[in-house]
Order: sequence, then C-alpha cells, then structure tokens
Amino acid sequence: MTQLLRSWVESANAAETDFPLNNLPYGSFVTPQTSRRCGVAIGSQILDVSALEQVGLLDLPQDNVFAEGTWNRFMALGPQHWAEFRAFLTDALGDGSPRQGDLQKHLVPMARAAMEMPFTVTEYTDFYAGRHHAFNVGSLFRDPANALPPNWLHMPIGYNGRASSVVVSGTDVIRPNGQLKSPDMDAPVFGPSKRFDMELEMGAIVGTPSDGPITVQQADDMIFGYVLLNDWSARDIQAWEYAPLGPFQAKATATTISPWIVTKAALEPFRTSTPPREKELLPYLREPGPMLFDIELEVGLAPEGKPETILSRTNYSEMYYSAAQQLAHHASSGCPMRVGDLLGSGTISGPEKQNRGSLLELSWGGREPLTLNSGETRTFLEDGDTLTLRGAARGDGFRIGFGACRGKILPARDLP
Amino acid sequence: MTQLLRSWVESANAAETDFPLNNLPYGSFVTPQTSRRCGVAIGSQILDVSALEQVGLLDLPQDNVFAEGTWNRFMALGPQHWAEFRAFLTDALGDGSPRQGDLQKHLVPMARAAMEMPFTVTEYTDFYAGRHHAFNVGSLFRDPANALPPNWLHMPIGYNGRASSVVVSGTDVIRPNGQLKSPDMDAPVFGPSKRFDMELEMGAIVGTPSDGPITVQQADDMIFGYVLLNDWSARDIQAWEYAPLGPFQAKATATTISPWIVTKAALEPFRTSTPPREKELLPYLREPGPMLFDIELEVGLAPEGKPETILSRTNYSEMYYSAAQQLAHHASSGCPMRVGDLLGSGTISGPEKQNRGSLLELSWGGREPLTLNSGETRTFLEDGDTLTLRGAARGDGFRIGFGACRGKILPARDLP
Repeated sequence: MTQLLRSWVESANAAETDFPLNNLPYGSFVTPQTSRRCGVAIGSQILDVSALEQVGLLDLPQDNVFAEGTWNRFMALGPQHWAEFRAFLTDALGDGSPRQGDLQKHLVPMARAAMEMPFTVTEYTDFYAGRHHAFNVGSLFRDPANALPPNWLHMPIGYNGRASSVVVSGTDVIRPNGQLKSPDMDAPVFGPSKRFDMELEMGAIVGTPSDGPITVQQADDMIFGYVLLNDWSARDIQAWEYAPLGPFQAKATATTISPWIVTKAALEPFRTSTPPREKELLPYLREPGPMLFDIELEVGLAPEGKPETILSRTNYSEMYYSAAQQLAHHASSGCPMRVGDLLGSGTISGPEKQNRGSLLELSWGGREPLTLNSGETRTFLEDGDTLTLRGAARGDGFRIGFGACRGKILPARDLP
Repeated sequence: MTQLLRSWVESANAAETDFPLNNLPYGSFVTPQTSRRCGVAIGSQILDVSALEQVGLLDLPQDNVFAEGTWNRFMALGPQHWAEFRAFLTDALGDGSPRQGDLQKHLVPMARAAMEMPFTVTEYTDFYAGRHHAFNVGSLFRDPANALPPNWLHMPIGYNGRASSVVVSGTDVIRPNGQLKSPDMDAPVFGPSKRFDMELEMGAIVGTPSDGPITVQQADDMIFGYVLLNDWSARDIQAWEYAPLGPFQAKATATTISPWIVTKAALEPFRTSTPPREKELLPYLREPGPMLFDIELEVGLAPEGKPETILSRTNYSEMYYSAAQQLAHHASSGCPMRVGDLLGSGTISGPEKQNRGSLLELSWGGREPLTLNSGETRTFLEDGDTLTLRGAARGDGFRIGFGACRGKILPARDLP
C-alpha cells in the first residue's frame, strides 16, 4: 500500500495533504457547536466518529466507545478491533463507497475544529535512545572519547516522566522557574530557566496492557500508534538537580504531542531496521524484524511576529533503539504496562549539525549561537518563540503526516 | 485530642488497637459476599460506607462517591467535605450515639474482609529526603566526607516512579529479572536480582489538585493522608542502569502500601518540625510551621516458615524534608499535581545502625550480614521472605496505627 488510495473526500487526494486515505489518524476535537468528540482526519476534514457511533453507523463490541471523546476505550478493545475499524474506514471513505451519503453529513472542516488531547496519558516514560544525541550530549558534558555512558549500548536508558504535564499541540508553554546554580555560584537561586530548550522526539502509545515480561515482538504488537513529541527541557534546572536520581522538575513543565495518533497500521509500509549494533544485545532486546519507521522530521522556530526558520531536519530511523525495544525493556522487571502509556523515543538527532534535535546540540551548549532568517540569534528559547515539529512518512505521491506539534513560550510566572 | 475518644464499637477502645475512634482511616475491601467497598476501620471492624451511601445515611454533595470502592472521588470533594465527613463519623461512632442502631448492621469484621488498594494511584513520585539514609548511601558508594550530593541540602531530590507498580499490602512480590553487571564483568547478563531490597518509607496522598507553583502551606493543605510504603529496590539493577537518568527498572517491580489511608486530620496532634536546617532553604521551600509527624516505625523480616525478626525501628520525624516541602518542590516548575498522586518520603533511617530503613544500610552494602532470630543470616532478601512494615503515632492510652504493610518475595520468573 505505497500508492495513494483515493477517497471521495477530494482534499484527501491532494499530493501534499498530511491525511490521505492511507493515513486515517485518530484525534479528539471540539467545535463551537459540539462537545469533545473522537475524529478521524481525512484531507481537510474530520470524520466525527462519536456522532457515527451515536447514530448507530458503527459496528463495535461495546457501547459508548467514543462517548468521552478520547481514544482510550477504543484502544482497550484490542488489535483485532483496531484492524476491523480501520478496514471499515478505508472502505467507507474510499472513492465510490455507497456509504458516502451517510458519512458526508458527519464531516467537520478542520478549520472549524480545535484539537484536544487524543487520549488520556496513563503514564509517561521518556528515553535517551538516539545515538547521535547521546554522543553529542556526552561530548559536551564529558568528552568525545567517553561520550556514551557504559550502559548505553546495552539497554535503552529511560526515566519516568510526568503524565500530568503532557499537552496537545497549540497549548502555550510557560517558562519554568526552578533552582539554578552554575559552578561559580556558592548557592542556588530560584528563578526563570535561562536555558529552556526543546527536544524533537516521537512518542509511541501502548494500546494493549501487559503484566510481566514481554518479547520485543509482543511489544511491537502492543503499540497502537505514534505521535510527534516535544520534550521541553530546562537545561539549567536539570544540570543542578539531576545527580543522582535523574531529571525531575527540568522535564515537568510540559511535553507537547501532535494532535493526531498515526496508527502503526498506517506506518507499516515504512518499516525500517535499527542501525547495526555496535555491541551485541542481550536476547530479550533483540528485534525479530524491522521495528523503526522511515519518518522525515523537522523543527522550526518563529520568534514573536517573525517568520519561521527551520532549525533541523532528521529522521526517526536515526534511533538506535525502537519503541518496541524500549517497551520490552520497560516491562523486563515485571513493571505492568497499561493502555494509554506514552513512551518518548528520546531526542532524534542525525549525524550532521543540521540534523540535531535540540538547541543544546545546535548551539553546542550555548557557545555557538544560531542565526535565524530574521537576523536574530538564538542559543536557547526566548519568550514569544513558537516551536513547531512536523513529520511525515513519504509514499508514492502521498504522505502519512502527523499534523503540527506546536507550542509558544510565555514568560515565567512571577515568583511567590 | 490526645486522649482516647470512646466508641460504642468496644474493640476500638482497646489500648493496642491500631484503629481507635481517634483514627478512622479509609480503606477498600471485599468479602466473599460483597464486591469492592469503601470502608472505615474502627477497632476490629470495618464500617461499610459504600453501603451507608446506598441506603441514604450519608449527606454528601454528589451521588456515587463511594460506588467504585476507592477513595478518589471522595478526595476530589475537597477539604471542607473531608472535615464534615470525619465529624459525622466521629459523632456517629462515638459512645452513646443515637446512630448506633443504623450503623451497627453495616459493620464488617476485619477477619472476613480482604483489603484492596484504597485509592487509584494517579502518579507516583519517590523522594530521597532522609538525611541519615542519604549519608549512609553516600558513605557506602562515595565516602563519608562527600556523602551528600551538592544539591541535597537545597532541595528534596526526587524521581518519578511507576504508578502501575503500586500494590496493596498482602500482594506477593516476584523477584525481578534485569540487567546485572558488576565492575569486574565485561558485559551485562540478564537474570534475577541478587541484591533485592526493601525501603521503609511513608507515602503522602495528594487530595487537592494544583496547576502551577504552590507554597509549602498550600501543599500541606492539599495532602489528604498518609500510608506506610515499601519501595522494593533491586540494588544491582540500579547500580548498572542509573547513570545518567536515575533509577528505572530497579524500582518498577512493585511498591507496597499499607491498606488504610490515615488522614492528616487524625495525625494533627502529632505534628512535629523537621530537624534544624544545615543550610538555609530558598524561600519557596521554607515551612511556616511543623509539617512532619511523630510516627514510630518498624520493619520485620520473617523467613519462610520461621518467626519474624525486627530489623529496624525508626521514626518519620527523622526526615529532613516534609511531604509538604516535597510537594511544593514538585509543583515549582509548574508541574500539575492531581488527586491521587502518591509521594514516597524516601527511606527513613535514624541515626543508629538499628534505625536503618534498608538492608543496603543494615548490611552495609552486603559486607556485614545480619543474623536473624532463627539463626539464619541476611544481606539482601531471599525468596520466601516476608517483610512487614508497621507504624503508629502514640497518644495518651491509644495509638493511631496504619495496619501492616506486608509483602512476600516469590522466586523470579523463568527467563524467556
């Protein structure tokens, strides 16, 4: 299925839409007239599946799957129902479908809708599994010869993040206050982060629960879909707080995700392998097949009232560990995984400077300011800056897009 | 209220019950005849408040507060309703109450009930805020002169734990598998943890949400109650995985809590201050009054089929940071806090060897095995061991107890 599938929704057949019939990503939206609904993106339209359920046009094994306007209950139905529902949508939205008349009245123009969180995040885990990012950060804070921590090539290093801080694209991000102490200071001060940064990541969403160790294949089967993810990070808060228990308040302000869950099913044609192993992995982490995806990614920065500059372009296939490997590692201690768990990939930097996925790397720790198209320079984010992540897998004449993952930086709160 | 309040439930007036009328802790239980219910402990009995709600004996602002058998909806009603409900219970269960006839038929003997998780854990955070524990661990892994990390006296160091792994007392704990690598090994192996440990902690439960920074006083007001908490820890998995992002699979197997939420209201007579500051705290972390509690704690270990040995006795007042300070720090970046969030205090060791709250400290990294009453020795936990935490605040002729916090170690799962 690497050819465009044609839909009777004309805008879905345009070459540069994020949402052709091949995609069919899942989101949550409101309009001035309607409460929160589950919707499927198709071209410039959203198919209101909460309405379809209400009027009895869906064949689902339970009532009220879409009544709350989030996708958690649907995920909990399991992989067979995921496949059947996708087959129904592909058929019903396809060119010449006899269902066009029924469905057309439940299309909502995207321009009239505001997007909400597509699912309730149960728990959020973030990884550090990009080889180039880990090398860059290790080179910055240690030295290039000892850039990778000793464990790094043996396991996907991760930490538990804060689910309450995950927000949908379009939500403003207030610059955090926190404890700051540079090495030349005797004691910390409390104030606004001066090194507030973004991290270009992908997020994987767990759709099937587990209660014990799982294989990498089982982990891949459990993943429902993917989103773009910006792991906002206060580098100065992190530098002072992180030893010995890891990042905490540095990563708790916000994590922004794109509004559409692109299903694993839509990404199947774009599977690709992780890079060659530099050290052999333990058996529980070995992949039985390709479990990454070829997804082009970019990040743009627009200062307040100014045009955007693309800061970086990279690809999800740069990851050293796939989400399936991360999930298998996550469950290896017996940690129960649940429907709605979100796994951040870690920053996805590529091999060259123009492929770096964070300002920490792009400005090399603040020592090499970037010049924007507007002539301004940046080391870290300034108030009023808008960051936008974009991503797409490219087929023959179509793209599987994620929609924008955007956030604007507001000034820090007054101190108490 | 440091005198015993007398109840018409006679067992609640016994000197050594955990559950006099002064306590009234909240739990969740099932019996062979009934589904999951909310209950209040009184002497050897449980008052079935889900049943009281059903028959219309409670005056609550919403329907179905106790219908699910967890205390989250009640917590969400807010502090005024917490106080009103406690006043109702204190009156209705008091000696000579005219409500005795109505309530008596809704008492369930504890011996007939099995306890469930008293609340749904929204997110779980664990701290490292005991001065003696941090000194001991720092002395073991570094040296006594540099035992405390530089940030330790300036902030309560914490990390996000895994809410899905929190279980109620009585749940068996399966020894985790994980990556193990001692310094003399070339590469890690995957297998059962050989240094599986307990940590004696208290847990604080957030009952009121916040969405932005809060003061320490506001944080104290937000706390609904406290439980005993055992943060099971695989020291060998942690040693290899923790740099640079902190503990992950080492702490994801299980965290056990006691079955009864002892309310902050019940603990009010036992408030005490944190120890003197060794360095002045930043204003956002300063306490306006005493926010710790004088709670005696102990941990016992019983090998399979053998009597128990008390390993350690300590007191919650040994903490350097209170739960209110931890919560204020947690929210300082703008991190949203929610009803049902659980905050582990960190290991509560006292100044002497017999006050240490983990086997890591008690056996000094495994180098000084403990001898049990049975004649066996222990460095870390063995399969079949049952660990029990107990705790109580002591008034004049009564105690505010938590019930046991117990878990038995089962052998690791077979490797895949």
